[in-house]
Amino acid sequence: MAYFDRARLLERAKRGVKEAYTERDQLLNQVVNSLNELNRISNLLSERLREWYGVYFPELKIADAEKYATLVAIIEDKKELSAAILEESVGKEKAEALEKLAKRSMGTELNADDLKQIRTFAERILSLYAQRVELENYQAKLAKELAPNISHLVEPALAARLVTVAGSLKRLAQLPASTVQVLGAEKALFKHLRQNSKPPKHGVIFQHPYISNAPKKQRGKIARALATNISIAAKADYYSKNFIAPKLKERFEKRVAAIRRSSPA
Amino acid sequence: MAYFDRARLLERAKRGVKEAYTERDQLLNQVVNSLNELNRISNLLSERLREWYGVYFPELKIADAEKYATLVAIIEDKKELSAAILEESVGKEKAEALEKLAKRSMGTELNADDLKQIRTFAERILSLYAQRVELENYQAKLAKELAPNISHLVEPALAARLVTVAGSLKRLAQLPASTVQVLGAEKALFKHLRQNSKPPKHGVIFQHPYISNAPKKQRGKIARALATNISIAAKADYYSKNFIAPKLKERFEKRVAAIRRSSPA
Repeated sequence: MAYFDRARLLERAKRGVKEAYTERDQLLNQVVNSLNELNRISNLLSERLREWYGVYFPELKIADAEKYATLVAIIEDKKELSAAILEESVGKEKAEALEKLAKRSMGTELNADDLKQIRTFAERILSLYAQRVELENYQAKLAKELAPNISHLVEPALAARLVTVAGSLKRLAQLPASTVQVLGAEKALFKHLRQNSKPPKHGVIFQHPYISNAPKKQRGKIARALATNISIAAKADYYSKNFIAPKLKERFEKRVAAIRRSSPA
Repeated sequence: MAYFDRARLLERAKRGVKEAYTERDQLLNQVVNSLNELNRISNLLSERLREWYGVYFPELKIADAEKYATLVAIIEDKKELSAAILEESVGKEKAEALEKLAKRSMGTELNADDLKQIRTFAERILSLYAQRVELENYQAKLAKELAPNISHLVEPALAARLVTVAGSLKRLAQLPASTVQVLGAEKALFKHLRQNSKPPKHGVIFQHPYISNAPKKQRGKIARALATNISIAAKADYYSKNFIAPKLKERFEKRVAAIRRSSPA
């Protein structure tokens, strides 16, 4: 008898654990964090590449890291460089300027193997950039699936970040709008509580163009309106599963228009 | 007249800069640093992968990060997992244990696209590990070419690190043996100078197995003997280009044998 009780209890415990695991929105956290890491890492490796390739061709100055890696992967021998193969990446004018710079470059001459190693490194970086794009698409798809209302109201990438910062869709659905408004600005919030500094007006929702592009004094009000609607959208995504986002969006747009009218920049 | 002077001066300045660039051992620094970065990054991404795949198959516990990524890339559907496809990577016993764990896994069920994304991520990590091996080989080749004497005396990887920490082969060749001995232990050295703490006995040369495997009280003496020979080897590599390393190595081995006899562990 005792044995069966134990077995039943074990089974129940196992179900409980499984339920915790089964919240599929955990995937969203994973993808958001992996994307962040991938971003950071691509930048770090790009810096390395600049230094390394700088030994050979210090005159190559391209601000965009991905484009820089593309050029490193394309250029075989700087002395033989023809503008034609660069045109597609940087345009005719820049390509011709680079051809000239390459011909009288002051960098060290390197042998074919040296250059191959640098090019392979550049290609690896490019494949990380490609992976980033792929993951971004997947993140958008996941966000639309798991949080269709929030994703419709704001960009799927922002929806994914909101869920991640909250910890889960469930937690996001349970938070009051005032907390959603400052999600991701915890540091500023605690500073406010401790030291009586100004409270933060927005956390990650600042990314929304309506807020980031607004004049400073309208931002608080727009953030509040957006947070209110996100909060409702999150509840719909987690509880009712009804798709009410178009209505929320319309309401939000009207509110923003009213805010803009009432306090012109 | 003045014009020609200016042109000549410019030409001379340009040659000077070019010379600075032309020191090919700069490549060694670049490769050492890129390898360090690649190591750090593979580890970071591997941690990410563990967390992400843990949503699906939390029971998969493999300490080695590269092997873990390999398994993630291999396993298609945990419910259909057959031990046979894992045997090559983890051996028969472990493969069978994993098959059982997979069948009653408590992780979340994921769809084909979710799994594809994780597997692609794992494959990207594996390609970084592959790149690391390739760069290590290239680093060894470069070290043997640029510093054949040091590379013969110690491992090429250690030779590469010594050149990098010194800044260049030229600087390494100019350093006294006592400095070579503590290269890479600058922090401990300055602490010693400031606070009268014990001076460091070894910097990066601690990696040499004769030092790291020696009993503590022999390490200082062996480090000193190794540094003396590295210093001579560096001078040969930079100035005379004679290959004298076999003699240096023999002398070093004899000295180590003497140290071991005179102060048994």
